[in-house]
Amino acid sequence: MTRVDINADMGESFGPWNMGDDASLLKTVTSANIACGSHAGDPDVMAATMKLAMQNGVGIGAHPGFADLQGFGRRRMTVPRASLQNSVRFQVAAAIGMAKSLGGHVRHVKLHGALGNMTSEDESLARDCYEAALSVDPDLIVMVLCATAQEAAVRDLGCAWAGEIFADRAYNDDATLVDRSKPGAVIHDAAEAGRRMVEMVQAGAIITASGKRIETSIDTICCHGDTPEAVEIAASVRRTLEAEDITVQTLEGRWG
Amino acid sequence: MTRVDINADMGESFGPWNMGDDASLLKTVTSANIACGSHAGDPDVMAATMKLAMQNGVGIGAHPGFADLQGFGRRRMTVPRASLQNSVRFQVAAAIGMAKSLGGHVRHVKLHGALGNMTSEDESLARDCYEAALSVDPDLIVMVLCATAQEAAVRDLGCAWAGEIFADRAYNDDATLVDRSKPGAVIHDAAEAGRRMVEMVQAGAIITASGKRIETSIDTICCHGDTPEAVEIAASVRRTLEAEDITVQTLEGRWG
Amino acid sequence: MTRVDINADMGESFGPWNMGDDASLLKTVTSANIACGSHAGDPDVMAATMKLAMQNGVGIGAHPGFADLQGFGRRRMTVPRASLQNSVRFQVAAAIGMAKSLGGHVRHVKLHGALGNMTSEDESLARDCYEAALSVDPDLIVMVLCATAQEAAVRDLGCAWAGEIFADRAYNDDATLVDRSKPGAVIHDAAEAGRRMVEMVQAGAIITASGKRIETSIDTICCHGDTPEAVEIAASVRRTLEAEDITVQTLEGRWG
Amino acid sequence: MTRVDINADMGESFGPWNMGDDASLLKTVTSANIACGSHAGDPDVMAATMKLAMQNGVGIGAHPGFADLQGFGRRRMTVPRASLQNSVRFQVAAAIGMAKSLGGHVRHVKLHGALGNMTSEDESLARDCYEAALSVDPDLIVMVLCATAQEAAVRDLGCAWAGEIFADRAYNDDATLVDRSKPGAVIHDAAEAGRRMVEMVQAGAIITASGKRIETSIDTICCHGDTPEAVEIAASVRRTLEAEDITVQTLEGRWG
Repeated sequence: MTRVDINADMGESFGPWNMGDDASLLKTVTSANIACGSHAGDPDVMAATMKLAMQNGVGIGAHPGFADLQGFGRRRMTVPRASLQNSVRFQVAAAIGMAKSLGGHVRHVKLHGALGNMTSEDESLARDCYEAALSVDPDLIVMVLCATAQEAAVRDLGCAWAGEIFADRAYNDDATLVDRSKPGAVIHDAAEAGRRMVEMVQAGAIITASGKRIETSIDTICCHGDTPEAVEIAASVRRTLEAEDITVQTLEGRWG
Repeated sequence: MTRVDINADMGESFGPWNMGDDASLLKTVTSANIACGSHAGDPDVMAATMKLAMQNGVGIGAHPGFADLQGFGRRRMTVPRASLQNSVRFQVAAAIGMAKSLGGHVRHVKLHGALGNMTSEDESLARDCYEAALSVDPDLIVMVLCATAQEAAVRDLGCAWAGEIFADRAYNDDATLVDRSKPGAVIHDAAEAGRRMVEMVQAGAIITASGKRIETSIDTICCHGDTPEAVEIAASVRRTLEAEDITVQTLEGRWG
Repeated sequence: MTRVDINADMGESFGPWNMGDDASLLKTVTSANIACGSHAGDPDVMAATMKLAMQNGVGIGAHPGFADLQGFGRRRMTVPRASLQNSVRFQVAAAIGMAKSLGGHVRHVKLHGALGNMTSEDESLARDCYEAALSVDPDLIVMVLCATAQEAAVRDLGCAWAGEIFADRAYNDDATLVDRSKPGAVIHDAAEAGRRMVEMVQAGAIITASGKRIETSIDTICCHGDTPEAVEIAASVRRTLEAEDITVQTLEGRWG
Repeated sequence: MTRVDINADMGESFGPWNMGDDASLLKTVTSANIACGSHAGDPDVMAATMKLAMQNGVGIGAHPGFADLQGFGRRRMTVPRASLQNSVRFQVAAAIGMAKSLGGHVRHVKLHGALGNMTSEDESLARDCYEAALSVDPDLIVMVLCATAQEAAVRDLGCAWAGEIFADRAYNDDATLVDRSKPGAVIHDAAEAGRRMVEMVQAGAIITASGKRIETSIDTICCHGDTPEAVEIAASVRRTLEAEDITVQTLEGRWG
C-alpha cells in the first residue's frame, strides 16, 4: 500500500489579524504545521488551531521560525548558532506543552520561512536546528524538504523524518524550486497539481520541469494555505491521490 | 525538623540587557523563579539561567507574567480570562520543554508582577491561572503568597503548593504588605531580615508590623534580586536560619 | 452651509496581516485615523496608507493606542501618566514625520481603543494625552467623542478640536454608547445609519435611543472599517448627508 | 582653528533595563546618538536622554537600527529596500517629533549596529537609508564612517555630513577596522586613545596600524559607552584634544 501525508502551515493568525482558512484546510490535510509565536501565532491562536486539528484527526506539528513578526519569518537573519538553537527549543517546547495541556500531542517539527530556506542550503545549520528540537522531544518526526541539505541532516542524525515535496511548485534538476519569476514555476491549476502529485508519489521521485527523476522519499505533500485557491488545490490533490488508491494519512515517521 | 526554601526571581535579563546578579544569588537560594519571555527573559537567558540553577542544585520554577516587556509585567492589564490562561500555558510550556532539553526539570510555578498582585486579590483569577499551569504539568508545585487569595485558590484546587513570605517587607494585619511609602515598609538591614525570617518560620505565622500573628504555612522565603543589597540579605537570611537549625532546601510541595 | 467630516480608523494592517478595506473606505471618508505602530500598523503600512489617503484627498490623522499588538490596543493597561504621555508623543511624532517625508501632513489626532475609552471617562487622563500630542504639534486638531470627558478636556485646553459621533451605534441618555449586548445597540442597516446621521447633524445634537437630545458640536462621523458592511454604511451615510445638502469635507478644526 | 565633535551612542536602555552611563558620558561628548525604539530605547528612555542631552548642551542625533530588540540591531537582516527606508523614516520621525515636543532639535542621524556595518560596505544601501532620513528632514547632518561606502554615499547625495573615526579601534590599510580577535585591535588605554585622536585630527587622516595615512574629513570621534572604561576614554580624548588647542564642540555639518 502506498501512503502519503498532506501538510499545510497553519495557526499563522496573530491577535486581531486572521491569516488563512485553517478550518477548511483541516478537512483535507493530515498534518498541520502550527506557528509558535515567533514569526506568527500567539497563545490563543496556537490553542485554537491545535484544538481544531485534534477535532479533525490531523497531526500536530511545531513550526518554528525567526523571531520577526513584521517580516513573518521570511527575512534572513544572521543569528548566532547557539541563540538560534535556544529559539528553536523555546518554540518547540511551547508547542509541545500547549498541545499537552489540551490533551493533544506534537508529532512533528518543520522549519518555517527563511529558516527553512537557509537550512535547505546548509546541512550544518539544519542539523543544529533539528538537534535543538529533538533535545526537547527525541521522538519528534522531522519534516524535511526532499533532496536538500535538510534531508542530508536528518539522514546523518538518524532521527525519525519525513520527506516533503510541494504540490504547487515546479522543480529544477538540482531539486531546488523553479524561481517564481519564471513561467510555470507555480501550478495554479488544481487538477494539474493533483496529477503531478500522483505521478511523483508513485514514482518515488521528484519529477523536474525538464522531466528528470530525482529519487527520494516522498512522505508528505505541502499545500500552501494563504491563497484563495489553496483549499481547492489541497482538496484536488487528496481526491486525485485517493482515486489512485494512494492512502492519505498522517505521517508516522521514517527512520533514516 | 523545620525546613524552608528560599526563592528569588531570576532570568530577568533580556537580549543585551542584564538584570540582577543571578550567579551570586544562585549560591544562596534553593528555588529560582525564571522569567518565560513575556515580561522578561529570552530563550538564551532562560537556557543560561536554567543551566546555572542546575549546576547549583537549585530548583527551577516557571515565572509567567503579562506579555509587556517595556512594563516588565508590572502594569495591570485587563486580559480576557481564556487568553490569560493560554498565555500562562504557553509560558509554562516553554519553560518545561527548555528545562527538559537541558536535562533539567521545572518543579514549581509562581506568577510575576502585576499578575501576581492581581491574583493575590482575586481567588477566581488565581485559580484560572493555576489551572492553566497545571494543565501543562499537574505535578507542578504552585508557589503562593501566604494568606492571600492565591492560597485560597490552591487549597481549593487541591494541588501541590508552597506558601511564601517576603524577607524584606513588613506586613499589615490583613497579611498585605505595608505600602512602600510608609516608614519601615522595606527592611534594608540584612541581619534584621534574617532574624525576622527565623521568627516567622519558627512561629509558623506571619508576624505583622503591629505584632499580630497570622498563622499560615511558610514553605519558602522570597528574596529580591534586583538591588545591590539583595545578595547580602539572601545570604544573611540563609545563615541565620541555619544557625537556628532550620534546614534550607528546595521545596517539595505541600498538599492542600 | 452645514458641513461634516467622515472619519474611519485605517492603517491597521501589520506585516503580512491585512485588516480592513482601506482603499475602498478612502473613496468615501474625508479623514483617516492611521495607526502608529503600537497597537497596529508598521512603517510600511503607515506609509502606504498615508499615500493612499493623499491620493484620495483624505485628511491624515495620527491614531495612537496602547503598545499592545496582540490585544490591538483594546485591553486596558495601567500605564504611569508620564510614560503614557511619552508613548503618545512618540506615536504622533512618527506619524507626523512619516507624512512629511511623503509630502503630506498630519492634521488631526484621535485616541484608539482602550485608551479612547479610558479618556472618554477621565478628563485628566484625556487632557494629559492631548497635551502630549499637542507638544509635538500645537496645530493638531484633536478629535473627541462628543459629550464625554474628552470634550471637556479639549474645551479646557482651548485647542482646535472636532466632536465625533458614531454612525452605527445607539446612545444612552448620558451620551455613552448602548452596550453591544442590548438589542438595537448596533445599527446594521446602511440606510438607517444614513438617516440617523442626517437627523443628528441637522439637530446639532446626539439623539439617544430614548429620543432625548444632547446638544453638542458634531464635526465628524465615525464609520468603522473592519466589517464587510462597513464600506456600505460609510457610503450610505455620505450619500444621505449629501442628498440633504450637508457638505461632506475634511475637518478644519473648531476652537473651543 | 581645528574643531572636532565627540559622539557616543546613548538612550540604549529599555523598559526596566539600563545600559551605559549616559549621564556621565553627556558631560564629555558633544553629540548623542539616541536609539529610536527599534533595536533599543523606548519613548521614556528617548525623552529622558534627550532632556539630559539638552541640559548638557549636547547635540541630539537619531540612531536608527534594525527592528530587532533581542539582537540589539546587531544581527544582519535582509529587509526589502523600501521596507528598510520606511523603518528609517519612522525612527527618525519619532526622534524628531519627540525632541520638538521637549523643546529640542535633532541635528544628525547615524545608522546603528548591523545596519551601520552593512551600509559601510554598500554605497547603494547607505544612500537609500540616508535619503529616507533626509526625506523627513533635509537639514539633518549625516554622520558617516570615514573612508567607507557611507562617505561615498553622502558625497554623492550632496547633503550635510560629518566624518567619524573611532577612538578605541585600530585601522587596517583599507580603512576597515582591525578584527577584534587580533592583538592591538582595541585600544584600552585612555591616554593612548587620546594621543591617537590628536594625531589623526591634526593630520586630517586616519593613521592605520601599519602607519599608512588615509586622508579624510575627520569631524567627529566615536567613543563607546557600554564599557566601564568608556567614560574614562572619552574624558581622556577630550582633555588631550583640548590640551592641543583643538576645539571640541558639537558638529555643524560639512557640505560634500
